[in-house]
Amino acid sequence: MEYSFSKSVEALSSSAVREILKLTQGNQVLSLAGGLPAEDSFPIAEMREAFNRAFEQGAKALQYGLTDGYLPLREWIASRMKQKHMDVGADNMIITTGSQQAVDLLCRVYLDEGDVVLVENPTYLAAVQLFQFRGIKAIPVDGDANGMDLDDLAKKIAQYRPKMVYVIPTFANPTGKVWSLERRLGLLRQCKAQNILILEDDPYGEIQFDGEAPYRSIFSLDEHPTDSCVVYTSTFSKIVAPGLRTGWAIGDTRVIQMMVKAKQAVDLQSSTIDQYALYELLSRFDLERHIEKIRESYKARMEWMHELLVAQNWEGVQWEKPRGGMFLWVNLPEHVDAEKLLARSVQEGVAFVPGKPFYAAEPQVNTMRLNYTLLNREDTELAISRLGKAFHAYSESLVTNV
Amino acid sequence: MEYSFSKSVEALSSSAVREILKLTQGNQVLSLAGGLPAEDSFPIAEMREAFNRAFEQGAKALQYGLTDGYLPLREWIASRMKQKHMDVGADNMIITTGSQQAVDLLCRVYLDEGDVVLVENPTYLAAVQLFQFRGIKAIPVDGDANGMDLDDLAKKIAQYRPKMVYVIPTFANPTGKVWSLERRLGLLRQCKAQNILILEDDPYGEIQFDGEAPYRSIFSLDEHPTDSCVVYTSTFSKIVAPGLRTGWAIGDTRVIQMMVKAKQAVDLQSSTIDQYALYELLSRFDLERHIEKIRESYKARMEWMHELLVAQNWEGVQWEKPRGGMFLWVNLPEHVDAEKLLARSVQEGVAFVPGKPFYAAEPQVNTMRLNYTLLNREDTELAISRLGKAFHAYSESLVTNV
Repeated sequence: MEYSFSKSVEALSSSAVREILKLTQGNQVLSLAGGLPAEDSFPIAEMREAFNRAFEQGAKALQYGLTDGYLPLREWIASRMKQKHMDVGADNMIITTGSQQAVDLLCRVYLDEGDVVLVENPTYLAAVQLFQFRGIKAIPVDGDANGMDLDDLAKKIAQYRPKMVYVIPTFANPTGKVWSLERRLGLLRQCKAQNILILEDDPYGEIQFDGEAPYRSIFSLDEHPTDSCVVYTSTFSKIVAPGLRTGWAIGDTRVIQMMVKAKQAVDLQSSTIDQYALYELLSRFDLERHIEKIRESYKARMEWMHELLVAQNWEGVQWEKPRGGMFLWVNLPEHVDAEKLLARSVQEGVAFVPGKPFYAAEPQVNTMRLNYTLLNREDTELAISRLGKAFHAYSESLVTNV
Repeated sequence: MEYSFSKSVEALSSSAVREILKLTQGNQVLSLAGGLPAEDSFPIAEMREAFNRAFEQGAKALQYGLTDGYLPLREWIASRMKQKHMDVGADNMIITTGSQQAVDLLCRVYLDEGDVVLVENPTYLAAVQLFQFRGIKAIPVDGDANGMDLDDLAKKIAQYRPKMVYVIPTFANPTGKVWSLERRLGLLRQCKAQNILILEDDPYGEIQFDGEAPYRSIFSLDEHPTDSCVVYTSTFSKIVAPGLRTGWAIGDTRVIQMMVKAKQAVDLQSSTIDQYALYELLSRFDLERHIEKIRESYKARMEWMHELLVAQNWEGVQWEKPRGGMFLWVNLPEHVDAEKLLARSVQEGVAFVPGKPFYAAEPQVNTMRLNYTLLNREDTELAISRLGKAFHAYSESLVTNV
């Protein structure tokens, strides 16, 4: 049989990075590559009890349910969103298989092949892949530590007539960046004026390290939450557990209803029992306290990695200490190709993600993303030490090659 | 905000049927409309225990997992597939969010806008919707009680150059039809010769009412299972519980790997904990005996509905007693429009699905699909009696209108 795949599959062709990371599976390589939460942060006992309570609801917990999601869970989330100045009800919400699916569903109902989405540069690599998979052009907008450059945004809007802007304004993946209020308002103002949809992806917003008030979501800054140009998505993956694959999107009911119809075609619904159990957990659990513990733990891990990197004292290596989230974004010396460094690092027994695939265009190959949430203190120390060996060996090989 | 949705969304526009069925939610309407399994068939206590055992595995059960699915579960399914003459390993398999997602993923990696898929007429309405959502043309092939007409198949292949044929050869939705061995082999031969992919959708194959040997899947009839022109998909929705949203697809590794990449972009993976729990269930559960009980129960329900329909003795109404599956397909008198009958039926307190949306083209509007698995004996009796009232009232209204 000669298979003849869709043209769209070209966007999914295996990357060099994925091939290298495959080598790390099942052996002694320490991974700073993934975006995995710390396993000791999972409320295992509470979750187990919640599943048991879900089963007390009887057969309904194992039956088909609504495509838009279990109503008590949507109501619970809506009330939490309200505390964060997002004035929505259950009708403004769809439960998705992680926030990843929210991005996919919105793309499928809102964008056509050839449409343009503006993105940060770098941005979440799986979103870029998803856009390419659907034949959508992802055009990067310049930015700095405070978010997208509003002048370049205006220029790119005029030049490309985008239908959507995709942003992660709080503790971005991969950079850890936080947008200033001014940039958030500026993006909102321009998009409203030009009828452009904003997809605000907020998986990390809860993981804030300073004791300050939470950063306002762009969705919450819109005066008209029920006629908004913003669709907001988040997930329980980082504050409860990713294996439940439960995320949500909120927006105007017209947009949400379209996403519901798409989801009905795509997979009918996400797991009923997981939604029941999650609701049972949340209705009795002190989530705020749990999140507080995650913040403290992740902050300590971040500080530890920062200290270890400082101690390594590599020449020409720079990073900003993130104010939240799960990643440390590192600028390597200009002559370093992080993909080549990765190959060397895997030999030493440590993996990370090179920066290149996070760029929709004009990649800076001398960048890398380090995750500090998965490994414990000891393994992090070992990982950074191995990374140091790889860095020196790689730097020497460059000198030799010259 | 003026939203501007994708062109593809037109395929998802709300149907008259969906609007009518919405009226049935939350009130006293008895539903013969859905494809819901009997809730007393769910192994609730065993499943609850299985979740508890899954939690004994610790944090891994709540962490991110492999996109292709939990390996022990894939191995368990592969070994069961082997008993059904499908010689596959875990590498030939992807776990999906129900078999619905398998159809979506295969479409996304194998088909482009404008491509043609040949289908039975009528066929599963959500598959037709999914094809339309992706801009794929679904072209019907003529058929009879034994499956697709092989001459018409050859004609349509020559005329439309399809990339894929989508079939439900065993206890089809909506007709309950079973393809003969000759037709299965004929389809396989033509598709192999012409390099056309077959998507064999088999959610109901286990629900067989006679004591005969199971019908051979088309996949199992291919001499080269690892270089096959068949992708086979099935699900635990009908033999364990749909709320777990766990299905699978098997095929050549090249096809499966593409589907894995698509799934990675679309939702990363299906629920980890559900896959762990399902494996825990299956590794200790007597699934064969459980399926046997479902068969007996559904056969009794089907016979009961058949008896009730015979007793109604409606003029010009015909149906075949299904040999398995979950649906009874009814041909109404030629002058009856089942959508209008539905509107009348909902007033009487009973719902079903009119046949029209199951047709990719040339719909026979005087058809309807009745589900016999959800309601108990008493409610089924009441439902058919209400349907009788509606049928007579509707028939009289036709006479009056003339």
